Amino acid sequence: MQEQIGKRLDSLRRRMKEADLDWYLITGSDAHMSEYVAPHWRTREFITGFTGSAGTVLVSLDGAWLWTDSRYFIQAAHQLEGTGVSLMRMGVEGVPEPEDFVMDNATRGQRIGTCAQEIGIHEFDRLEKAYARHGLAFVATEDLLDQVWSDRPALPCTPVRQMPVSIAGMDSMHKLSLIRSRLAASGCDYTLISTIDDIAWITNLRADDVECNPVFLSFMFIDQEKAVLFTQPERFSDTILDSISNVFRVRPYEAVYDDLASLAHGRAYYDDARVNCRFRDILTREDGITGRDFSTDAKACKNPVELEGMRKSHVMDGVAFVNAFSQVDFSLTDGTYDEIAISSLFAAERAKMPGYLGPSFNPISGFGPNGAMCHYSASAESNARIDRPGLLVLDTGSQFEYGMTDLTRTLLFGEATPEQRRDYTLVLKGHLALARQRFIQGTRGYQLDILAKMFMWKEGMSFYHGTGHGVGFNLNVHEGPMRISANPIDVPLEVGMVVSDEPGIYKEGRHGIRIENLIAVKEDGETEFGRFLSFETLSLVPYERRLIDTSLLTAEELSQIDSYHSRVREALYDKVDAGARAYLERMTEPLAV
Amino acid sequence: MQEQIGKRLDSLRRRMKEADLDWYLITGSDAHMSEYVAPHWRTREFITGFTGSAGTVLVSLDGAWLWTDSRYFIQAAHQLEGTGVSLMRMGVEGVPEPEDFVMDNATRGQRIGTCAQEIGIHEFDRLEKAYARHGLAFVATEDLLDQVWSDRPALPCTPVRQMPVSIAGMDSMHKLSLIRSRLAASGCDYTLISTIDDIAWITNLRADDVECNPVFLSFMFIDQEKAVLFTQPERFSDTILDSISNVFRVRPYEAVYDDLASLAHGRAYYDDARVNCRFRDILTREDGITGRDFSTDAKACKNPVELEGMRKSHVMDGVAFVNAFSQVDFSLTDGTYDEIAISSLFAAERAKMPGYLGPSFNPISGFGPNGAMCHYSASAESNARIDRPGLLVLDTGSQFEYGMTDLTRTLLFGEATPEQRRDYTLVLKGHLALARQRFIQGTRGYQLDILAKMFMWKEGMSFYHGTGHGVGFNLNVHEGPMRISANPIDVPLEVGMVVSDEPGIYKEGRHGIRIENLIAVKEDGETEFGRFLSFETLSLVPYERRLIDTSLLTAEELSQIDSYHSRVREALYDKVDAGARAYLERMTEPLAV
Repeated sequence: MQEQIGKRLDSLRRRMKEADLDWYLITGSDAHMSEYVAPHWRTREFITGFTGSAGTVLVSLDGAWLWTDSRYFIQAAHQLEGTGVSLMRMGVEGVPEPEDFVMDNATRGQRIGTCAQEIGIHEFDRLEKAYARHGLAFVATEDLLDQVWSDRPALPCTPVRQMPVSIAGMDSMHKLSLIRSRLAASGCDYTLISTIDDIAWITNLRADDVECNPVFLSFMFIDQEKAVLFTQPERFSDTILDSISNVFRVRPYEAVYDDLASLAHGRAYYDDARVNCRFRDILTREDGITGRDFSTDAKACKNPVELEGMRKSHVMDGVAFVNAFSQVDFSLTDGTYDEIAISSLFAAERAKMPGYLGPSFNPISGFGPNGAMCHYSASAESNARIDRPGLLVLDTGSQFEYGMTDLTRTLLFGEATPEQRRDYTLVLKGHLALARQRFIQGTRGYQLDILAKMFMWKEGMSFYHGTGHGVGFNLNVHEGPMRISANPIDVPLEVGMVVSDEPGIYKEGRHGIRIENLIAVKEDGETEFGRFLSFETLSLVPYERRLIDTSLLTAEELSQIDSYHSRVREALYDKVDAGARAYLERMTEPLAV
Repeated sequence: MQEQIGKRLDSLRRRMKEADLDWYLITGSDAHMSEYVAPHWRTREFITGFTGSAGTVLVSLDGAWLWTDSRYFIQAAHQLEGTGVSLMRMGVEGVPEPEDFVMDNATRGQRIGTCAQEIGIHEFDRLEKAYARHGLAFVATEDLLDQVWSDRPALPCTPVRQMPVSIAGMDSMHKLSLIRSRLAASGCDYTLISTIDDIAWITNLRADDVECNPVFLSFMFIDQEKAVLFTQPERFSDTILDSISNVFRVRPYEAVYDDLASLAHGRAYYDDARVNCRFRDILTREDGITGRDFSTDAKACKNPVELEGMRKSHVMDGVAFVNAFSQVDFSLTDGTYDEIAISSLFAAERAKMPGYLGPSFNPISGFGPNGAMCHYSASAESNARIDRPGLLVLDTGSQFEYGMTDLTRTLLFGEATPEQRRDYTLVLKGHLALARQRFIQGTRGYQLDILAKMFMWKEGMSFYHGTGHGVGFNLNVHEGPMRISANPIDVPLEVGMVVSDEPGIYKEGRHGIRIENLIAVKEDGETEFGRFLSFETLSLVPYERRLIDTSLLTAEELSQIDSYHSRVREALYDKVDAGARAYLERMTEPLAV
C-alpha cells in the first residue's frame, strides 16, 4: 500500500507539472459539497491511504501533507506511515492551517491548483484572495486525479423511487412554486440548486447513491418557466419518468455544465457554499445574489404529514429498542456481549419494523473508554467485549419509508459508580432542560445551547460536539440550516423543524455518556409579549434509570422524566413483544415517590 | 418652531440643488460614530425639531421624513407636527427602511448625498452598492448643514485632565505598545483610531466634550514609530502637554484629514464601522484590513487596578443608596414623593462620595406605567407623583475618578400585588441565574443571554432590550465589544470584562421591573475539560425583599440572595450614616428560614 501511495503521488506530480502547478489541494469533497460522499470521490483515501471521514490534502512537487482532526490522529498516523505523506494535526498548537502552510512555504509566483468541481465558489474566492495577497496564484483545474486514478469507481447511478404525496405531504409542483415565489421576491431570474438532499426533497424522489443517505447525484435549474433536473436518466423507470415529466425536464448529470450556459438568463440566485467552482463564470455573469438554497429553508420545516411520519418512525424505533433490550441481561459483565453484538441486536429488531429501509448512519456502539471517543466506530478489530461493569454509548438511527430516527442511549452493564451516576444525571438534566424550554418566536439555536450545558459547566465539565443538529425526512441525518450549538448560526427555530437534543460527557480512558432524543418545534401560545414555541419530544425510549441520581434532580425534572416515561409506556405497550412488556414496565416506572 | 423647520428645509434644499442632489441623508452621527453626540452634531434635531436620541432623516426636494423607533413614536409625532417632516415608525409592519424608501421613490439616475464625515466607511460602501443596483448614485458630500445652520454650536473643546497610573493601572506607553504589537501581527503598517473613548483610554486623559461621557474629540494615528493625537491643543495645560509629549505628538483636530495623507505609508488597519468616510480614499489606498480597533479589545478587559477602582466605586454607590433610601418612607403613597425627587435624593447622596464626578448617564426614574417604558426619562412635565401603591424603576449610575457604576433597582411604594411579586421574582431569578453561572473559556455573551430569560419565557413574558452591555472605566456607560444579548456578537467573555446583568419585564400601562448589577468576569478554575470562568458581582445594593415571592425560589437561589445580602451588609455597614444602619440591616436580613 505504502508503495502504491508513492506511485500515485508521483503520477499526480507529473500531471501537476504538465498543468504548471507547484501545489495541488485535494478537498475531499464531491461536486455538491456533501457531508458524505460516494466512493467516486474518496480522493483523500486514494492519494494518502487515510480512510477517515474528514481531512484536507496538499501535495507539492516534493512533499505531501494530510490535515485531519483529533478524532483521527491515531488512525491517520498509522495509515500514513511509510507513505511519504506527513500528518498535520489540526487544532494542535503550532500546526498551521493548510493555506497558512502554503503561504509560509511557497515562493512568490507559485501556482496552487485544485479541482474546480470539488470546491465551493465561496471557498475558492476566499482562498484566491488570500493567496493573491502573498503573490500566489490559486487556480481551478480539471480533476487531475481522474487521469491518475485508473480504477476510480464510477459515479453512482442507483435507481430512484418515488415518495407518494400521502407520505411527503406536498407534491413537487407545490414545492417548486414555493421556490419560485421566493426567487421572484429575491429579484433574481433563476437559481441553480446543487444540494442533493434538497433536490430529493423537491422532487419527492429517493435513491441510494450515498451510504445511509437516500439521495441521487443531481443538479436542478429553476426559473419562472422551467425546471430542469440534471441526473442520469437511466435511473428512472418509465413510470416514474412519465409521472415527473410534467414538472421537470430530465437531462443527463454531466450536461449541466454546458446546458446552464444557454438556460441562464439574467441574475442568478445560488448558494456559493454549495455550488462548485465550475459554475462560477456563468453564475457570476450578471450581478447575482448568494444565499442558502430556498429549498433548504422550506425542507427544514416538516409539514404535518411529514411530522406524522416522524412520530410513527419513533414508535417503530421505540418498539425495536424495547424488543431488543428486553432480551439483554444487563447484569452480565463476563464478556457475553460485545459492542457489535449489542448494536446488531437493535438493528435486527429494527429490521422487523414495517417500512424500515436501513440505518440512517453508521451505528456507534462504544463500551467503557471507547464510549469516550464521540465518533468511535466499532470495527472487527476494536470491538470491545463487555467483560467488566461499565457504560455503553449506543448512537444509532433508522431510515423509514415515512421518516427517520436518530437516538442515543447510554446503557449500563453491571453496577454504576457514583461518578458515572453523577455524570449521567448532569447530562440528563441538560437534555431535559433543553427539551422543556418554552421560547419566544425568533429564538435561534445558539441561544438555547447553554441549557444543555449549564449543569455540567457548574461541575467543571463540558462537551465539544454540537448539542443538536437538524434531521431530514427520510433524507440526511444531518440537515441544516438550523443547529443547536454555540456557533452563532443566525437561523430562528420555526414550527416543524426537527432537531436532536444530545448533550454528553466524555472522560478519556474512562467513560462516555450521551443521551439523545429528537425534538420537533411546535406552537406554544401567544401572550401580550409575543408568540411562543416549544418542543415536542419524538423519541420514545426510556432513559437508564439505574444511572439517575434522583438526589440531584428537582421536582420539575422528576415529573418531566416520569411523564415522558408514561408517554413511552402508553405508546409502545400494545406494540412490543409480549415478552418485552415487563421490561418496558420496569424501565418506565415512576421515579418520584 | 414649525415655521423655522420649514425655512431650514428650504435652505437645505437650495444647497442640495447646488450640489446636484435629489435626496439628502442625515444620519445624526458625529464624526466618530459615537453613541452620544455633542450639541454640534444634533443635526437631526436642527432639521426636524425632534429631540429624541435616535433617528434617521431623509430630505428630498419636496419632502422630508424621520425614521425613529417605538420609544419615540408619541414624542416624535408631537414634535414633527406642522413641520412638513413625516414620521416613519421603524419596525411597524409596512414601514420601509430609509434605503428601501429611496429605492421605491427615486427615479433611476437620481443622486443621494450624505455628509462624508457623519457616516462610517462600511455603511457608506453598503449603501453605495445597494443604490447602484437600482441605478442610483450615493455620494459623500461636505456637510451641507454647515452652510444652513448659522448658529450651529461650535465643536466642543473642554480641558483635559490626566488619570494617574495609580488609577489607570497602565501607562499610555504600555497601551501603545500593546496596540503596536497587534498591529505588527496583523501585517499592517499603521492604524487610524477614531473611537474617542478608546483614545481617552490609550492616553489616560479625560475631558467633558459629551454629556456624561468623559471624552474629547480626537483621532489617533499609530505606526511603529509615531503616535499622533489629533485634538485641539487649547485643551491641554502646559503640564499635561509636557507629560504626554514624550509619547504623542499633538496636532489640531481638523488637521487629521490633511496630515493623514502624508503620515500613511503602507497598509492600514482600521475599524470601518467607526472611521468616517472622509478617510476612505487614504485608508483604502493600499489593500488594508478592517476590524475592531485593537484598543477596543484591550480596553474591555479591565486591569487589576481598574477592577479595584470599580469595586471601590460600587462601595460608594451602595453607601449612597442606603443613605438615600433609609430616609424614604416607602409606605407613603399620598404624593409625598415623585419620580424626580426620588432620583435626586440618590444623586445628592452620591455627590457626597469622594471622587464623585457626576452621573454616568441621564437617570431613569419611572413610576407605575412610566416604568414600563424602558427608556423613559422624567421631565418636569411628565414627572409622576407617587400617589398610589406601585413600582418605581430607578436606573442610574455614577462616574467616579476611579471607576463607574450603573445600577437599576425596582422600588416598591405601598403594598405589592401578587402579579408584581411574581413578575419581580421571575426577573430576579433570571438576574441571579446569569450572575451565578460558571462557564467555559470562549463562551460568548449570546450563549448566556437565555439564563436571564428562561424563567419568564416559561410564563409567556420577555423583554426587548439587551440583557447586558459592557461598561467603561470612567468612560462610556455602554462600551463594547462584548454584550449579553440574543445578537450573535462573536466576542468571548474574558477575565476583567465588566458587563451589566439587567433583565426586566415591562407591561404597558401597568408596571415596569428591571434589576441591574454590574458583574466582572473572573477565573474559576481549570479541569480536564478546560479553563472555566464566572462572574464577580460588583454592585452592592440590596434587592427589594418585599417584592420577592420566596415560594418561587429554589434553595440555591435563596442562598445566593442571602449571601449577596450579607456581602452588601459587611461592605457598607461601617460606611453608611449611623442613622441608615437599621435600614441596611432590615434590607439584608436572610430570607431563608
